[in-house]
Amino acid sequence: MNKLKYGVIGAGAIGAYYGAKLATNGEEVHFLFNSDYEHVLSNGLRVDSCNGDMFISADKIKAYKSTEHMPACDVIIIALKTTSNHLLKTILKPILHENSLVVMIQNGINVEEDLAVDFPNIAIAGGMGFICSNKIGSGHINHIDYGKVTLAPYNQAAREILPQVVSDFESAGIETPYLDSLKEARWRKLLWNIPYNGTCVALCTTTDKIMNCASTRELARDLMIEVMNGANAQNAGFTIIEDDVELMLSSTEKMTPYLPSMRLDFDAKRPMEIEYIYTKAIEQARVCGVEMPKTKMLRDMLEFIQAEY
Amino acid sequence: MNKLKYGVIGAGAIGAYYGAKLATNGEEVHFLFNSDYEHVLSNGLRVDSCNGDMFISADKIKAYKSTEHMPACDVIIIALKTTSNHLLKTILKPILHENSLVVMIQNGINVEEDLAVDFPNIAIAGGMGFICSNKIGSGHINHIDYGKVTLAPYNQAAREILPQVVSDFESAGIETPYLDSLKEARWRKLLWNIPYNGTCVALCTTTDKIMNCASTRELARDLMIEVMNGANAQNAGFTIIEDDVELMLSSTEKMTPYLPSMRLDFDAKRPMEIEYIYTKAIEQARVCGVEMPKTKMLRDMLEFIQAEY
Repeated sequence: MNKLKYGVIGAGAIGAYYGAKLATNGEEVHFLFNSDYEHVLSNGLRVDSCNGDMFISADKIKAYKSTEHMPACDVIIIALKTTSNHLLKTILKPILHENSLVVMIQNGINVEEDLAVDFPNIAIAGGMGFICSNKIGSGHINHIDYGKVTLAPYNQAAREILPQVVSDFESAGIETPYLDSLKEARWRKLLWNIPYNGTCVALCTTTDKIMNCASTRELARDLMIEVMNGANAQNAGFTIIEDDVELMLSSTEKMTPYLPSMRLDFDAKRPMEIEYIYTKAIEQARVCGVEMPKTKMLRDMLEFIQAEY
Repeated sequence: MNKLKYGVIGAGAIGAYYGAKLATNGEEVHFLFNSDYEHVLSNGLRVDSCNGDMFISADKIKAYKSTEHMPACDVIIIALKTTSNHLLKTILKPILHENSLVVMIQNGINVEEDLAVDFPNIAIAGGMGFICSNKIGSGHINHIDYGKVTLAPYNQAAREILPQVVSDFESAGIETPYLDSLKEARWRKLLWNIPYNGTCVALCTTTDKIMNCASTRELARDLMIEVMNGANAQNAGFTIIEDDVELMLSSTEKMTPYLPSMRLDFDAKRPMEIEYIYTKAIEQARVCGVEMPKTKMLRDMLEFIQAEY
């Protein structure tokens, strides 16, 4: 089996962590940087991690400012925020070969479907990261906790190459469960992302406070029930049950106070991932005959909040 | 016809305005003050008004700190915030006689029903004020705009005396429409109060901005439709139609930027009228088989916001 050539599109808090793990373990990894490009060229990439600090020196790192100068890759990890997904058509073209696999480590739902519209013949998979990692300076990432990424194939072509990717990730020390149902993995992640991201922004608060107030705890549950109903209406061979909702509520209660990614985006006045976390879910549920009124209301409020930035 | 003796319970921005209008026109008006009592005893009550300034001097004003020292009144105007309604049982007892009429000039719904639980045999009416008036200092009110108050009887006993009250109000220069259906009047007022009060608090904004953003304009409409459905389910001899909703939306769009009363309460960190504007409406709709999910979500968020004061 030939070694895979990796590309990381969006070498920020998430992409730089996984890319550095792979590179440190001897994989060939090409990193697409944005604003940090010049800094990394001079100073290298630093990833402080609770699992062991990593450093890729300036003379070793394969850093790029544009995919125009990058080689075609076998596995392309998309670790951009979904708010940049409209750029993917242009970004990906130069680095795809006919057997490339694109792995979307992103929040929300339907990111793979939308990519397949532009690239109907490539292998696509989804990655659901469970990781707490922040960029704390140019070319400097701080990985605080967790790190698991669940991988799941979007199409048949992805099923061929994904096991090798899982194996590379695991060898690099990344916990990488493989799930065959991407839809299930994405909807199950929404079960947390929909209630907590938006309410923590709209109420400018943290998950612990949401759970400590009877009214918002009930609201979180109501939102989860909407996600559950939307997910089950997909008729995709899996069922989320009320016990899953109760478990999600109680495990969130036990978490340390947490700022969801959308709250971090809000605080930094970055665009929020409203479309792929909220709008797409509402649309997918509606297509299957299920309304998500409270999810829709939260979305409407987030749109307002973002417009007021 | 004997002249009526008036009592004003809660001589703040609203109560002091209506009371001063009546007193200035020669009615006997007894005012219950709270924190302003000492100031008014020394300096009188000043109401600057777009319809003509009013002043009741310290030697003329019938001011009280407690209803214990007040005479029984024929007409008792309740102009407290509904957040103080739990005090009414105690406040009212000393000033009721067997034919007293209590007029609840308050926001929300079911205030009359709740009063009737404590006082099942008195005459009760509702007042729906449409007035822009603020307290700007001790014993000093600034009445900026509007001033209309719609009066409607809650029970048969109120129907006997209410026409004379309407006549007194009109003589004093207050536009006072009479409506026979209190339920209709209260639900029609909710059609505005439910969408705008809560969203202007939760999004910390004003009505014009709510209407200028497509998402929140749609949310305001969704909330109004819930109120419409809740109102119509009461089966109380009136029907709110979608044209009423569209008219309310377009007239709000034409209003000057407006801070709803709940937003003023929020800004001043006063208790918000969540119970009578939101919770009671949700309950009344549910009893009639109609759910108001977005209204409930807004209520839950308001409860959280208030708990965080």
